[in-house]
Formats: sequence, structure tokens, C-alpha cells
Amino acid sequence: MSVNAVQDIRAAIARGEWRKPTSGLAPGFTQANVVILPSKYAFDFLLFCGRNEKPCPVIDVCERGVTAPPTAGPDADMRIHVPRYRIYRHGVLEQETEHIRDHFTDDMVSFLLGCSFTFEQDLLDNGVPVRHIELDRNVPMYITNRECRPAGIFSGPMVVSMRPIPAALVEKASAITAKYRRAHGAPVHAGDPGVLGIGDLQKPDFGDPPEMRAGEIPVFWACGVTPQMALKRAKPDLVITHAPGYMFITDIRDKDLAQS
Amino acid sequence: MSVNAVQDIRAAIARGEWRKPTSGLAPGFTQANVVILPSKYAFDFLLFCGRNEKPCPVIDVCERGVTAPPTAGPDADMRIHVPRYRIYRHGVLEQETEHIRDHFTDDMVSFLLGCSFTFEQDLLDNGVPVRHIELDRNVPMYITNRECRPAGIFSGPMVVSMRPIPAALVEKASAITAKYRRAHGAPVHAGDPGVLGIGDLQKPDFGDPPEMRAGEIPVFWACGVTPQMALKRAKPDLVITHAPGYMFITDIRDKDLAQS
Repeated sequence: MSVNAVQDIRAAIARGEWRKPTSGLAPGFTQANVVILPSKYAFDFLLFCGRNEKPCPVIDVCERGVTAPPTAGPDADMRIHVPRYRIYRHGVLEQETEHIRDHFTDDMVSFLLGCSFTFEQDLLDNGVPVRHIELDRNVPMYITNRECRPAGIFSGPMVVSMRPIPAALVEKASAITAKYRRAHGAPVHAGDPGVLGIGDLQKPDFGDPPEMRAGEIPVFWACGVTPQMALKRAKPDLVITHAPGYMFITDIRDKDLAQS
Repeated sequence: MSVNAVQDIRAAIARGEWRKPTSGLAPGFTQANVVILPSKYAFDFLLFCGRNEKPCPVIDVCERGVTAPPTAGPDADMRIHVPRYRIYRHGVLEQETEHIRDHFTDDMVSFLLGCSFTFEQDLLDNGVPVRHIELDRNVPMYITNRECRPAGIFSGPMVVSMRPIPAALVEKASAITAKYRRAHGAPVHAGDPGVLGIGDLQKPDFGDPPEMRAGEIPVFWACGVTPQMALKRAKPDLVITHAPGYMFITDIRDKDLAQS
């Protein structure tokens, strides 16, 4: 698949022809979480991401008023190329919408953050099973007892996603994901959920309960819900994000993200 | 050496008892470049560093008005614990001073950036010679033909430092320095200086000319002079830096910096 094909997909999204989550769309190209904020919050948020790289890996930033991500999509437009947006005011979800032409001003700063879709494909390509994909469920996610390093108005716990991995493949899964510093990187923990303050794996805070099989170890990766929780807690007067699962598709190939 | 000893050294610096460059002071502890700016420039500068990690690796940031770096020195004071400061206004050096109590306001944001002192010690410890240290000279530095990715008001060429390395040790030197993402990391180039637009190794733009010996390859690392050039070009109304060689000594051990 070529960058041109990615641009065609984004054009279809802008025309309202794609109304599903983006999982599986544009295989080989990195998908990104989206956070768009008024500029007065931009330094604090960028610093929060820098201080908490595993849950909040920055792929690209559009400066104040800029609509095209310089690296991730120089021909893209952050106002129309995400299939579904969420608009929050003072921490409360106000609406979901298919474009933000009316909400994006010259003062907005857009952030693209890495997402675990990137490393899941690499796991599958290397024979490491990814249970929630097999079962067509959402990955289970848990709020941990580890606090992020705060920055300005942003703070909160680290959220992790969990994938059950056969014991013999844990090291391989760790090595594969460690390559993707900009997509959550290596696991933060493998084994006893209690170490992260997680009481019951079958009661995730977000997503669907896991199916653990004999000989499997629960492996935990930092998760992109972490910055979302920090945003909800900080209650900025306005923040626009992608709707869960409706990501921005970048021009960056997964294999290139691994190098960066 | 303990963190307490580092605090004692900083106390001596604050009392004006240390009036030399900090090279060799507090061995095993990371030294950092210092940039202190009014908050209106902080987002652009942090973004510039993030977009140009090799020349501008961020070790720590003090938020607006904060004088203690949260990770690098929670008991330190950026106003008094650098042995010599430089104060620039609109890109012009106004003065050198031993403290900045009268210039630091509640609006200032302080950045600590990684420095090659960190990896030079590791090179020496592993039998890789570092010529300019042997000769007690300054490392040669060159302005390259590679432009940094700009961010807001900040832009400029990448500056590199050069160390002549015996051909058989280039790979080893590369592997050692690659561990230090927050201290310029792996070389950006080894071999023909022309690739970086450098015409004559004997005419560095900064520092002293090198002494190349038979069988040695010139190896180039991204250099902390890069952000200084970007600052000079941007001409912010005020910026305070360390004086060259008079660094901030952090509480972070070099071996821990390698992990981060």
C-alpha cells in the first residue's frame, strides 16, 4: 500500500464515506490518537507527554493553528481527516461529530500520539497471538496504582492494556514491542496483576474481560487511555479528541516508526 | 560519590567557591546544559527539542517559576547552582554572572539538556580514546548542512562534535554512545566530513582543531551547540544559559541516564 492510497482513504473519510472504527484500515501505516487543545494548554500537555513517554508517546505535533501534521501527514487536515471526533468542554463530553471545521480555530494545537495497533500487527506477523483480536473484542484496560509524573494541570494514574501471552513467548513479545518507543514500547509489567494494583483481571476498567488460557502470563503495556484520563481530570475548557477506535491514519509506515 | 556529595558541590558553587568549568567535577553524575526562557517561548522550545532529540535531548524541565528540576535536582536551585550564567537579550550577550536571582522571575521556564560529558566518560572507561581529553583541548565542533526540524520561532543547522576514533573501535564507540539517548546518542555520521557539508576538519566552527592519526575515522555526534545557535537566531527578548563548560550538575547518575 502506498502513501497515495492513504491519502485516498483520508479523502473518503473527509467525504463521510467511512463510518467505522479504523482498525485494519491502511495496513502497514501507523494510526494515531488525536488530542487538540487551545494553545494555553499546549506546553503543559507536551511536557506531560514527555514526562510519561510510555503511555503518551508523541508522534507529531501541529503548531498553533496548523491543520497538517508536518511529519505524520503534510497533506492531511486535522479538521476533517478523523472519522469521528469527540468535543469535551470542562471535562464533559458535549458531542460527537464527523468534522471540526466549526470548532478548530487559529489558536488550536493538535497532538498525535502513538497507539498499540502498531505493535499488535508486528506481534501477529511474528507468531505471537493477540487474544482480543482473535475474539474480535476490545482489549482489557486497567487503571493502575502508578501515578504519572504530573505536568502543569495534567496528572493521573497510568492506564495499562493487557494481553495474555504464552509463557514461552513473553520475551519475544517484549522484544518486538520494545522497538516501538512511539507506540508504548516494551511492557511495563508481566505477571502478577497485584504489582500494578489490579485486583481482578476479569473486571477491567475499560474494554472487555480477557480470556486467559493455561500457560499464559498477563502482560501489561502502557495505554493511550492514560492521557484521556489526565485530560478528563484537568477539565480544560475545550478539548477535541478522536472517538475511541476512530483514529487518524498517518503517512508513517509502522516499520519506520520502529526506527524513530 | 553520593547524591549528598553532589549537593555539597552545588552548595560550594552557590557560595562562589567554584570558579572553573565543571568538566571532571562529580564523576559519575550527569552534567547538563541549561536554557532558561520566559514562558511565552517554552512550548516552541520544548517542541524544537522534541523534534531534534539528538542535538537537543531533554533531561528535565522546571515548570513556570519553578527553581528545582523535579528529576534532575529536587533540592537544587536553578538561580544559584550553575557556576556561571550568560544572559542574552534579543540574541545579544548582555553579561556573564554567578547567579541570576535578580533575573529569574515567576514567568521563567528552565530546561536541562543532555551533554556529551556523559558518554565520553563511558568511552574512556571502555578503552575508546577521546583525543581532545588526552590533549586537554576543547572538542572540535562544526556547523553541518543538515537543518533541524523547525518549531515556532526556533530553527537552524545541526551542529556536530567530532572525535577521531581508531577504525577498529568505531562500532564499539557507536554502541556505547547509542545507550545515551538523553546525551546525544549514537553518532550521526562516521567517515567523509563532506557528507555533512564540512569542508576542512582542521577549521572547526567552534572549539579546537583535531589531531587525526593514522587509521582513525572522524566520528560525528550531534552537539549541544545546536540549540544555542537556534536561540541566537530566534533572538528571544531574554534567555539565560550556562556559560560554555560551566554546567549544571544533576542528581542523575550517568548509568541511570543510559536507561532512561
